[in-house]
Amino acid sequence: RIDPDRLWASLMALAEIGATPRGGVCRLALSDLDRQARDLFVRWAGEAGCTLRVDAIGNIFAQREGTDPSLPAVATGSHIDTQPTGGKFDGNYGVLAGLEVLRTLNDHGVRTVAPLELCVWTNEEGSRFVPVMMGSGVYAGAFSLEHALAATDREGVSVRDALGAIGYAGAAPAALADGAPRFGAFFEAHIEQGPVLEDSGDVIGVVTGALGQRWYDVVLTGMEAHAGPTPMDLRRDALQAALPLMQAVDDIARAEAPHARGTVGWVQVFPNSRNTIPGRVSFTVDFRHTDDAGLARMDAALRDAVAKVQANGRVAVDLQPVVYFPPAPFDPALVDRVRAAAARHGLPHRDIVSGAGHDAVYVARTAPTAMVFVPCKDGISHNEIEDARPEHLAAGCQVLLEAMLETAGR
Amino acid sequence: RIDPDRLWASLMALAEIGATPRGGVCRLALSDLDRQARDLFVRWAGEAGCTLRVDAIGNIFAQREGTDPSLPAVATGSHIDTQPTGGKFDGNYGVLAGLEVLRTLNDHGVRTVAPLELCVWTNEEGSRFVPVMMGSGVYAGAFSLEHALAATDREGVSVRDALGAIGYAGAAPAALADGAPRFGAFFEAHIEQGPVLEDSGDVIGVVTGALGQRWYDVVLTGMEAHAGPTPMDLRRDALQAALPLMQAVDDIARAEAPHARGTVGWVQVFPNSRNTIPGRVSFTVDFRHTDDAGLARMDAALRDAVAKVQANGRVAVDLQPVVYFPPAPFDPALVDRVRAAAARHGLPHRDIVSGAGHDAVYVARTAPTAMVFVPCKDGISHNEIEDARPEHLAAGCQVLLEAMLETAGR
Ligand SMILES: NC(=O)NCCC(=O)O
Ligand SMILES: NC(=O)NCCC(=O)O
Repeated sequence: RIDPDRLWASLMALAEIGATPRGGVCRLALSDLDRQARDLFVRWAGEAGCTLRVDAIGNIFAQREGTDPSLPAVATGSHIDTQPTGGKFDGNYGVLAGLEVLRTLNDHGVRTVAPLELCVWTNEEGSRFVPVMMGSGVYAGAFSLEHALAATDREGVSVRDALGAIGYAGAAPAALADGAPRFGAFFEAHIEQGPVLEDSGDVIGVVTGALGQRWYDVVLTGMEAHAGPTPMDLRRDALQAALPLMQAVDDIARAEAPHARGTVGWVQVFPNSRNTIPGRVSFTVDFRHTDDAGLARMDAALRDAVAKVQANGRVAVDLQPVVYFPPAPFDPALVDRVRAAAARHGLPHRDIVSGAGHDAVYVARTAPTAMVFVPCKDGISHNEIEDARPEHLAAGCQVLLEAMLETAGR
Repeated sequence: RIDPDRLWASLMALAEIGATPRGGVCRLALSDLDRQARDLFVRWAGEAGCTLRVDAIGNIFAQREGTDPSLPAVATGSHIDTQPTGGKFDGNYGVLAGLEVLRTLNDHGVRTVAPLELCVWTNEEGSRFVPVMMGSGVYAGAFSLEHALAATDREGVSVRDALGAIGYAGAAPAALADGAPRFGAFFEAHIEQGPVLEDSGDVIGVVTGALGQRWYDVVLTGMEAHAGPTPMDLRRDALQAALPLMQAVDDIARAEAPHARGTVGWVQVFPNSRNTIPGRVSFTVDFRHTDDAGLARMDAALRDAVAKVQANGRVAVDLQPVVYFPPAPFDPALVDRVRAAAARHGLPHRDIVSGAGHDAVYVARTAPTAMVFVPCKDGISHNEIEDARPEHLAAGCQVLLEAMLETAGR
């Protein structure tokens, strides 16, 4: 049995690093706060008897020996970077639930047959650096280490420099080479980040897979001019041209409801002065869908909308895809193990599809994978008021423990 | 006859302070670059034999004695702050054309009967601090000194602190007290900042008045949430709610064409993360109209649009008016003097209404006022590529000289 109080205390201690006045956490990937959180994790994992390894993209792997070193590790983990207005649980829960599993096995002197491994993946949020789920993406070969290291934040700082600055550019190769040891299995515990479990009164979400995603950067270039003397019909207003496109992102997703999502989360207007007609507008698009054909329809519809604005001729539009992965189904056998563990404890549970991307989505390309969801308050995440109940977090951790134990053998 | 080369050389020298790589000027109000430009002006005005005075909002007045000290001064001037992507001529031309008038009179040993006065008004652009045309607004009593000093920029720095930091919080009272000496007349030379003169092939714009303006701050508050798991119909997306309002700003102005302008120049999205639904969006509205009733119709239409979004109930909208002044007609007698001076030199000229606000609009509340426009390249202003032809600038300066001389007497 895992220790609910110890799990909660660890969550609260980690949440102090980057704590915000409104009760959330702002701990952007590869910031100094990220370093502090990583240092704390490394200390805790060391105290739990793990061997630590850091790879070239900054992923941290804490290994606990098994009785049969020839077997591939049964792994778990998540991320500890957060959104700018993030909460205490997104990602952090998956890492600390994994740590609680190891501590519980230590308490009871349990040795598993296969080794266990606890992972902290770099830059899952994708808020400061794109691509999102960067550490697990490099690991799984979704994109190259070089591509990831060259990514820059809005201030022009590269992943390479930021990793170096916080001292987490490790020596281990980041991408899983052909024939390299793969995990025997990967589990990730996470808050749901949506309203489904709370709505149905379930405590455990048995995650059968995740939505596919397509992300884009859009830049519209018009001509800045004085807001006073410039007649309406002579304007090349990049913002007014952008409005129907931003609107289309929402419309396109609604047309595919309830299977799709579409979000413009980030906008920048240049020169951003009250009495100057905007000469340039940049914004992001985040599309998600339960199936890949739907995602392709959304892509086509967005390109149509862009072509329409282009055809108008007054403002140039540049559309750059920056993230794409298809919907990812998880491993049925491992998913069954999660479902069975929940049932064994009489925990109300249901199958669920993840709306968020998770490191597990990329790791699933390299090893059988499953996820455990627990409810979060009002389904709210990526918000400082993100919250979860200690008993739900404990239940998810217990399910994680049992699914891992069953997979690793004892 | 004014000296075209000296005028051009002064413009180019001033444009070096805050020069941008793309050939423009970024010299925000009350920045250290503004201080450097002010210091240069103070030196030049001193060398031209003027007595200098700085008031409590930082306006600079350079006086040249007349033969009859009992007469009110005939004044001219403009501003030397710029937009973030500003040009070399907006404002600067009006100040340096005034300086060239004084230098020319010095060259020829001309004493006017009434004193002459050359003004540099603080924060005309309104880009860093609102209200716009701040120095002349306080002078004319459009709003109080206290109100202006309390205004803060996006970083929270107040006008009071910024004025103090650059050493231009002067001792002279800023607001024109009842019974205080008013100007006998005020002239302002300025680039047109629009396409009309270039289009008609005219060199001098005889400005009969300026558009009225209404500016607003709009804030929409929804709820930030994760872009993945949050279904479309449960969202409280502040950006999607803002889109029809921003669109309305443009539509409302087009409905009043060709008499109106409507611009959203500044937008801020919170928390501005790709995969977080925006919880808050702030933007500005800039409405202009040739007549006050039209401006009132635009105000009503905007409030209707806001009410419609409010009624939807998912996102709260706050609309705050921040600037209002009615259309300002200039003094017919002075306007005639500008027209006559242009005609005397055979300069192609036409009557024109200013789309931009100018310090002259506020000064006109306290003294007979007129303006002289010269064309700018492609009608472009509030843009680093703003440009004007030396011979046009010289022609405008000559007209200014003659209109001032005729008014001040010799
Ligand atoms: N779980 C999570 O917040 N992931 C961030 C990537 C995404 O936006 O899906
Ligand atoms: N002339 C000028 O650019 N004034 C700024 C105020 C306005 O936006 O009209």
